[in-house]
Amino acid sequence: MPITSLEQLAAAVKEFGRERDWHQYHDPKNLTAALIVEAAELLEPFQWLTPEESLNLPAPKREAVRQEMADVLIYLVSLANCLDIDLLRAAEDKLAINAAKYPVEKARGSCAK
Amino acid sequence: MPITSLEQLAAAVKEFGRERDWHQYHDPKNLTAALIVEAAELLEPFQWLTPEESLNLPAPKREAVRQEMADVLIYLVSLANCLDIDLLRAAEDKLAINAAKYPVEKARGSCAK
Amino acid sequence: MPITSLEQLAAAVKEFGRERDWHQYHDPKNLTAALIVEAAELLEPFQWLTPEESLNLPAPKREAVRQEMADVLIYLVSLANCLDIDLLRAAEDKLAINAAKYPVEKARGSCAK
Amino acid sequence: MPITSLEQLAAAVKEFGRERDWHQYHDPKNLTAALIVEAAELLEPFQWLTPEESLNLPAPKREAVRQEMADVLIYLVSLANCLDIDLLRAAEDKLAINAAKYPVEKARGSCAK
Repeated sequence: MPITSLEQLAAAVKEFGRERDWHQYHDPKNLTAALIVEAAELLEPFQWLTPEESLNLPAPKREAVRQEMADVLIYLVSLANCLDIDLLRAAEDKLAINAAKYPVEKARGSCAK
Repeated sequence: MPITSLEQLAAAVKEFGRERDWHQYHDPKNLTAALIVEAAELLEPFQWLTPEESLNLPAPKREAVRQEMADVLIYLVSLANCLDIDLLRAAEDKLAINAAKYPVEKARGSCAK
Repeated sequence: MPITSLEQLAAAVKEFGRERDWHQYHDPKNLTAALIVEAAELLEPFQWLTPEESLNLPAPKREAVRQEMADVLIYLVSLANCLDIDLLRAAEDKLAINAAKYPVEKARGSCAK
Repeated sequence: MPITSLEQLAAAVKEFGRERDWHQYHDPKNLTAALIVEAAELLEPFQWLTPEESLNLPAPKREAVRQEMADVLIYLVSLANCLDIDLLRAAEDKLAINAAKYPVEKARGSCAK
């Protein structure tokens, strides 16, 4: 049964940990540390590349990147499960905050924060 | 119009960057660096806490954590947009890989990788 | 009395934590998490810059970078204190390992790992 | 000839990169990204450990940690070379800033930032 929504992914991740009794390790602090380790594994294939090269990854590297992105998402969903946070709602709220902080007129073309 | 799916979030994130002409900065290497910076900002509130404390965050800290989780998701979705990767499909495939790597019988109760 | 060696820095860092009773928090896991948070704060000012721009930081950004580098070093020294590791010896040993792994003839001009 | 000071390490690191023509890749942005990747590899062995376990690493894990600490230091020194920053001086200045920010009387026993 394919996963077609973030809710289904959240349920699958919960079941995966439950079957393995891993929830005992899955406090938010540990999960966040795991997430940043995966984020670094995602950064690793881009090391030393030019921005242009990072847009044109050879197939094996692209697949490695895809798997690391999956790991980041899986830990983010685990953390959301653990803290009972609705990720889509949080992202929607954050986009609204960012829109107020970087209005279109002023922010155009500048990434200066 | 509330965001109720990862696809809608992907579209909203794309539009947000397009309106601000930020896509010129959004190569995969830069987005991945941004993602790890947000992952560290997510880790920061958990610093020095015990695992138990990390489960019982005071309300302002919990909201900060929620916003940092949103930032991680937003950059992950930006990167998926940029590389044309289906995040849910990637996560589903990775769960299958993990299930083969950590079979229930052998992995139960142990987080040793 | 200025700090003129890594040993003196190690002693100053130890004294700093001792005076504040912070060593109770300074187990290796916490110190390593603190180090990566500082490493991300070091990466943050370089976000969205081109490689050339990263070489020509305006003075306030350069000072911020300098302070974040100091934070990384301070936590690295704290961790070395905690684990009783000689950092210079470790670095020397690692350079020898790297020299064997990337011989000059083969590695020249290529950062491919 | 053993490395007995940070200055000697800085010279050895510079020579190591020069022999391999790696300096072309070693702009500050790339070096900082490399540093955080190493910081994550340092965090990785501590994942899922209790604070107590992190103080009592088995020998092979301790050696892995030692090598990752070396990698962090090597990239920090590379970055200092590249930006012409005196690391010991920077750390000394930062300790003075921290001492003013966290006076002994007020900071004792609390890691709250």
